Amino acid sequence: MKEKGILFILSGPSGVGKGTVRKSLFEKDTNLKYSISMTTRKMREGEKDGIDYFFRTHEEFEKMIDENKLLEHANFVGNYYGTPREYVERTLEDGYDVFLEIEVQGAMQVKENFPAGVFIFLIPPSLEELKNRIMLRGTETSDLIRDRLNEAKKEIEMMDAYDYIVVNDDVDHAVTKVEAIVKSEHCKRERIAKQFKKLLEVD
Amino acid sequence: MKEKGILFILSGPSGVGKGTVRKSLFEKDTNLKYSISMTTRKMREGEKDGIDYFFRTHEEFEKMIDENKLLEHANFVGNYYGTPREYVERTLEDGYDVFLEIEVQGAMQVKENFPAGVFIFLIPPSLEELKNRIMLRGTETSDLIRDRLNEAKKEIEMMDAYDYIVVNDDVDHAVTKVEAIVKSEHCKRERIAKQFKKLLEVD
Repeated sequence: MKEKGILFILSGPSGVGKGTVRKSLFEKDTNLKYSISMTTRKMREGEKDGIDYFFRTHEEFEKMIDENKLLEHANFVGNYYGTPREYVERTLEDGYDVFLEIEVQGAMQVKENFPAGVFIFLIPPSLEELKNRIMLRGTETSDLIRDRLNEAKKEIEMMDAYDYIVVNDDVDHAVTKVEAIVKSEHCKRERIAKQFKKLLEVD
Repeated sequence: MKEKGILFILSGPSGVGKGTVRKSLFEKDTNLKYSISMTTRKMREGEKDGIDYFFRTHEEFEKMIDENKLLEHANFVGNYYGTPREYVERTLEDGYDVFLEIEVQGAMQVKENFPAGVFIFLIPPSLEELKNRIMLRGTETSDLIRDRLNEAKKEIEMMDAYDYIVVNDDVDHAVTKVEAIVKSEHCKRERIAKQFKKLLEVD
């Protein structure tokens, strides 16, 4: 019995460095497959259907939305982008982990449609710095402190939907942590024990 | 604010190689402190109180049992051995992870007295092999298959109290997995978000 793969979702505020971390991660780990998105935008020179994107018409895409065949989708400047559920599920069944790098709104949609995913929130080191700053200094005006706390609170509210939080203080550090999360998730008792149990129920 | 350490418990059937994995792990990671046991056995030449063991009299040890000051304890050939709660908690407060290598009965006691611990079950590769054997062959007598399944089921029942399962197919593999578990546990949202929240409540 082949172990089923796990869907990992890397998300976080824009500008935090999700792409850099993902790129660096893919230079290392080989059991991860990057989730291929579906889009209605025109294919560019050199791009291939099913490799760079799944290219679809507006009508086809909207039909998939109606039939709930996307884990998430969004519309940017008139074109749809989304994550097809079938490709993700097939890849997981084949025993690969699927890695999805996505902005926060999309991640929340995936959370709803695929709660079994492992959600990793990448945060900028400035939040850490902010934390330290608020703690160590007592000199700022209470208005400024309040603004910063509110901002931090918003971040934290988003965090609550995630399983892990990784501070991107350094790309190598962050990648090592994501790798550790991937490895340790495969050791989770719920996953492995289920395999054993499934097996034992057979006879 | 210093991050509090985490108590990791490595357990598993006797002979699985817990000691080897622990030793190899301690050659690598430096933020782990090995939990020092308490005992009533005589101090041997070269041993130091508070380094090798906390050496106590029978009366002192039994007083600690009565006062629930041990995370677990057992009696081997007339001597008590146990894990003092205070040492573990102080070390965690100091920001170190504490690593406890222990047999299954002791781990179950720790689970009761310290449920916040992270419990890792080390299993022999033979269970995996057994799994494959049962699956791939259909030739064994049904009695033999039943015996093996029952044995496997007993193992699985013990597993249910654990957070992670690590197959000790190879010491390096197993150590890498335990290291990944230690690292990823520090990224768990529940732990980190709590820190942020605690901070935010202060002001």
